[in-house]
Amino acid sequence: MATLAFIGLGSMGLGMAENLLKAGHTLTVYNRTAAKAAPLQALGATVAPTPAAAARGAEGVFTMVTDDAALTELTTGPDGLLAGLAPGAVHVSCSTVAPATTTRLAAAHAAHGSQLVAAPAFGKPDAAAAAKLWLGLAGPAETRARAKPWLEPLGQGTHEFGDDPAMASVVKLCGNFLLGAAIEAMAEAYTLAEKSGVGRQPLHDFLVGTLFNCPVYHNYGRMIASRHYLPVGAPPPVIRKDFRLVLDHAQQLAAPMPLAQLVHNRMSTTVARHENDVDWTAFARRVSEDAGLEA
Amino acid sequence: MATLAFIGLGSMGLGMAENLLKAGHTLTVYNRTAAKAAPLQALGATVAPTPAAAARGAEGVFTMVTDDAALTELTTGPDGLLAGLAPGAVHVSCSTVAPATTTRLAAAHAAHGSQLVAAPAFGKPDAAAAAKLWLGLAGPAETRARAKPWLEPLGQGTHEFGDDPAMASVVKLCGNFLLGAAIEAMAEAYTLAEKSGVGRQPLHDFLVGTLFNCPVYHNYGRMIASRHYLPVGAPPPVIRKDFRLVLDHAQQLAAPMPLAQLVHNRMSTTVARHENDVDWTAFARRVSEDAGLEA
Amino acid sequence: MATLAFIGLGSMGLGMAENLLKAGHTLTVYNRTAAKAAPLQALGATVAPTPAAAARGAEGVFTMVTDDAALTELTTGPDGLLAGLAPGAVHVSCSTVAPATTTRLAAAHAAHGSQLVAAPAFGKPDAAAAAKLWLGLAGPAETRARAKPWLEPLGQGTHEFGDDPAMASVVKLCGNFLLGAAIEAMAEAYTLAEKSGVGRQPLHDFLVGTLFNCPVYHNYGRMIASRHYLPVGAPPPVIRKDFRLVLDHAQQLAAPMPLAQLVHNRMSTTVARHENDVDWTAFARRVSEDAGLEA
Amino acid sequence: MATLAFIGLGSMGLGMAENLLKAGHTLTVYNRTAAKAAPLQALGATVAPTPAAAARGAEGVFTMVTDDAALTELTTGPDGLLAGLAPGAVHVSCSTVAPATTTRLAAAHAAHGSQLVAAPAFGKPDAAAAAKLWLGLAGPAETRARAKPWLEPLGQGTHEFGDDPAMASVVKLCGNFLLGAAIEAMAEAYTLAEKSGVGRQPLHDFLVGTLFNCPVYHNYGRMIASRHYLPVGAPPPVIRKDFRLVLDHAQQLAAPMPLAQLVHNRMSTTVARHENDVDWTAFARRVSEDAGLEA
Repeated sequence: MATLAFIGLGSMGLGMAENLLKAGHTLTVYNRTAAKAAPLQALGATVAPTPAAAARGAEGVFTMVTDDAALTELTTGPDGLLAGLAPGAVHVSCSTVAPATTTRLAAAHAAHGSQLVAAPAFGKPDAAAAAKLWLGLAGPAETRARAKPWLEPLGQGTHEFGDDPAMASVVKLCGNFLLGAAIEAMAEAYTLAEKSGVGRQPLHDFLVGTLFNCPVYHNYGRMIASRHYLPVGAPPPVIRKDFRLVLDHAQQLAAPMPLAQLVHNRMSTTVARHENDVDWTAFARRVSEDAGLEA
Repeated sequence: MATLAFIGLGSMGLGMAENLLKAGHTLTVYNRTAAKAAPLQALGATVAPTPAAAARGAEGVFTMVTDDAALTELTTGPDGLLAGLAPGAVHVSCSTVAPATTTRLAAAHAAHGSQLVAAPAFGKPDAAAAAKLWLGLAGPAETRARAKPWLEPLGQGTHEFGDDPAMASVVKLCGNFLLGAAIEAMAEAYTLAEKSGVGRQPLHDFLVGTLFNCPVYHNYGRMIASRHYLPVGAPPPVIRKDFRLVLDHAQQLAAPMPLAQLVHNRMSTTVARHENDVDWTAFARRVSEDAGLEA
Repeated sequence: MATLAFIGLGSMGLGMAENLLKAGHTLTVYNRTAAKAAPLQALGATVAPTPAAAARGAEGVFTMVTDDAALTELTTGPDGLLAGLAPGAVHVSCSTVAPATTTRLAAAHAAHGSQLVAAPAFGKPDAAAAAKLWLGLAGPAETRARAKPWLEPLGQGTHEFGDDPAMASVVKLCGNFLLGAAIEAMAEAYTLAEKSGVGRQPLHDFLVGTLFNCPVYHNYGRMIASRHYLPVGAPPPVIRKDFRLVLDHAQQLAAPMPLAQLVHNRMSTTVARHENDVDWTAFARRVSEDAGLEA
Repeated sequence: MATLAFIGLGSMGLGMAENLLKAGHTLTVYNRTAAKAAPLQALGATVAPTPAAAARGAEGVFTMVTDDAALTELTTGPDGLLAGLAPGAVHVSCSTVAPATTTRLAAAHAAHGSQLVAAPAFGKPDAAAAAKLWLGLAGPAETRARAKPWLEPLGQGTHEFGDDPAMASVVKLCGNFLLGAAIEAMAEAYTLAEKSGVGRQPLHDFLVGTLFNCPVYHNYGRMIASRHYLPVGAPPPVIRKDFRLVLDHAQQLAAPMPLAQLVHNRMSTTVARHENDVDWTAFARRVSEDAGLEA
């Protein structure tokens, strides 16, 4: 068992941190809004006042926050984790961020004498709570070897992507893109089925019972078929940010992704209309509206 | 056991007809190029010189041909199956055609005193041969009840879509659209992964081992990851035709499908360049080319 | 001066027919709703009860109707103009129709011993009334030579496109496509300007005073800048049909036109929402809505 | 006559600086590659070793450089113009940059006691040389009043966009976007005309002789019709950068611009294939290639 820290106790981080505790690790936690740490404190976690304080004495520090700016601030800012982290310790970065951000932070760690691995988490908050996440992992081989056992209690399995931590960030962006692509595809098909007279639900039931019998189509498709976009796994602005990261990365590589642009546009409209209290899957409404439904 | 006919012995139809024979049905077959019927004749099938002759005396006539024009000709043309079909007999129409074509042919059957059910088949030629197809079924309830047992030896299961046979044609178009959408999505993601340095194969292995663990992503994704678009399940012109049917139907319903248009465009380019000796999945090459790869 | 007929007295045809009369031609007219012919009768036109009757005795018959079906019916239908037209007479087809329709009707004329030229008209109803149209012209050289002087009183000039009448139909489709493309472009730019704080009108005034100083940007741009989509030059369903013709033609040639698809989608949404009492330029609203404006 | 400086002597800046000299202004110039200043020196300009040196003593400093990074560096960098500029002097920023960059630099000027106006230039290098540019102008009213006369010898006219200099940057982005949109539209139409048999040139001649009789369609259309993308007004990477700025700005405002994305994708492909020795209009090749031409 290791001495670990966990920074960022949002809907994903809370479940992940709890599973580290349950696995027997010694855990110090930090969250900007301290109240969210209470349930973990009850389970034995220590609450730190700053990321630096949380990192002090830890062999490994997990981070799970909303965006690149937050991750950068809590890593390299005045009270950031680097200010407390011992040389040789490991930063396990689980957030969805730009590959370039991962590269930049890895360089900051190298200068500090510590290491960063990127370990993005695939799954919704309920999967985080149930230790059913899938995890990517990339970074220097030796560091990966140290971090991998810590990831075990968080999910169903860990896939490694080599020595460059940015590669795991790329994989995470690809994964989220593919989810959005499947949502757009189902939204178009179910809308056609509705206007044709087949109905949304019969088409959905057929697809997930046959060719598309996998969790993504079951879970997101159920929302699209029923037009009931709750509970909120992730709200539209958060995943819209992820698609911006996909497109920024693709633009830097001169790799056109028209389908990613289409989904990004749907989500921009969703955010522009302040539909923020639904799951991001609700961008499927745009497809129906464009066909004159739900007006 | 029933007295059946099968018209259209292409890569799909041949396997389906063979499975009807193996199930013990009495089968008469017809194909424009008669030579293709030889293996079925060896298994006990009778070869008819025209669709009308094939239909004569049959309780049910299956058709599995390339497009709307071929299906219309062999149904209502001079030597078409209606010219031989007994009143009360059933036409089991398995081709991918426009819902409007299905409606038109159903009306021709009604005038003739016979019935049409649409029973589109989901799966590649190897699935047809292995009796692993999934089948849709729509048409008048009583007629469906007669036809359903005949479908059993062809696949893994049959899903019913009500009394209007055109609805099964809609479901088939939706299914093919969703396949193309998944291919486009993987092509964009794998291209990004390649240009990023992750590589196509590691991303594919991760996805199909986790969130996208279903046959579509396994089978089509393998081709896209390896850039090896063989064997030919269906060549580009055939599926391009299917996407035209999707878009024509969507246009009539005023239901915009930008993702279907994107895939259709990829396939138009593929056909315009005469890349017809590969599986239609090869439209994924367009995505790589647009990113400056494979030039 | 010639003995002519004019079939189709909609908002475009009425002005065109009046200008033929004013030029001194002897004119017989036909319209499905006969009442629309009254003003022309007052100017000396004879009103015929059928297209065939209108065509009887005419050296040239103009047609200007809504779509391919109407044109086909009034040309080759039971009381169609071919039933009255003398061998050697000329059909001047001004409607926006599929190139394939033009080809089909030209063949019907050839069989009849008459000729068809396509002479699509570019301009709005007010330009038709003011004899400010631009005309395309294609068909056999000798026939073009006969028809060209008749076109003179209708517009500002006639451009010839060779011996194949279908080529003029292609040019007309290209022209309408370019109008729609310019509308989409302005709609996106003006929406960005509005959300940025520049405002729609200042951007419009700048553009049409500098780089885009041509009628299309002035006239359509004024509507988009002011969000006032009146008067109705052509309603959304009519031009949506034109874009369908563009896409059908492009699909047959395997020539992807993603911008034409984008505009077509905007217009499908407009039609699906029954916004039919505005000029087709109003599809620009979709762009604003997608940005969270006009909701 | 004023004491001015000009920084950035590329294909645009050189002509602009020369026209300031010809108008009788006293001019100090700076360019990273000093050799480019030689022709101006011959006309009486003083050559400065740094932006700071060029700005020293100037009432107004023009800048015309490639991108946001270059502009930021030469304004606020160690030897940047702010290091030499007198309080009360004016920075006339002519480059195409992000509105946010303009805002940031305007704030730096405010802190310094100087002012910034944005004065983006519309036109190609030949228009810059011939004093045929169109200029936008935005910034504090009093500063605009001082700068406006300096702009007179550069072009055909100046349009003002209020007190916020960022607004002129927005207008410039909108203008470039509209150029790209027109190119895409012509490329799709001319490709359809080519595959139809009309030919590219006849369609072009018709359009620019009638509805689209304005410089943009004449000049860019000539290249597209002839497929001859020379001379280079601006190379693909430069305008691709402009489209990235458009899309970044639109993304921040949640204003989807699918047509801007389409053009950006075309240019990404062009850059990914290293086609950098042609005018950016050459992205029109992508449209032809997608239709199976130019392969």
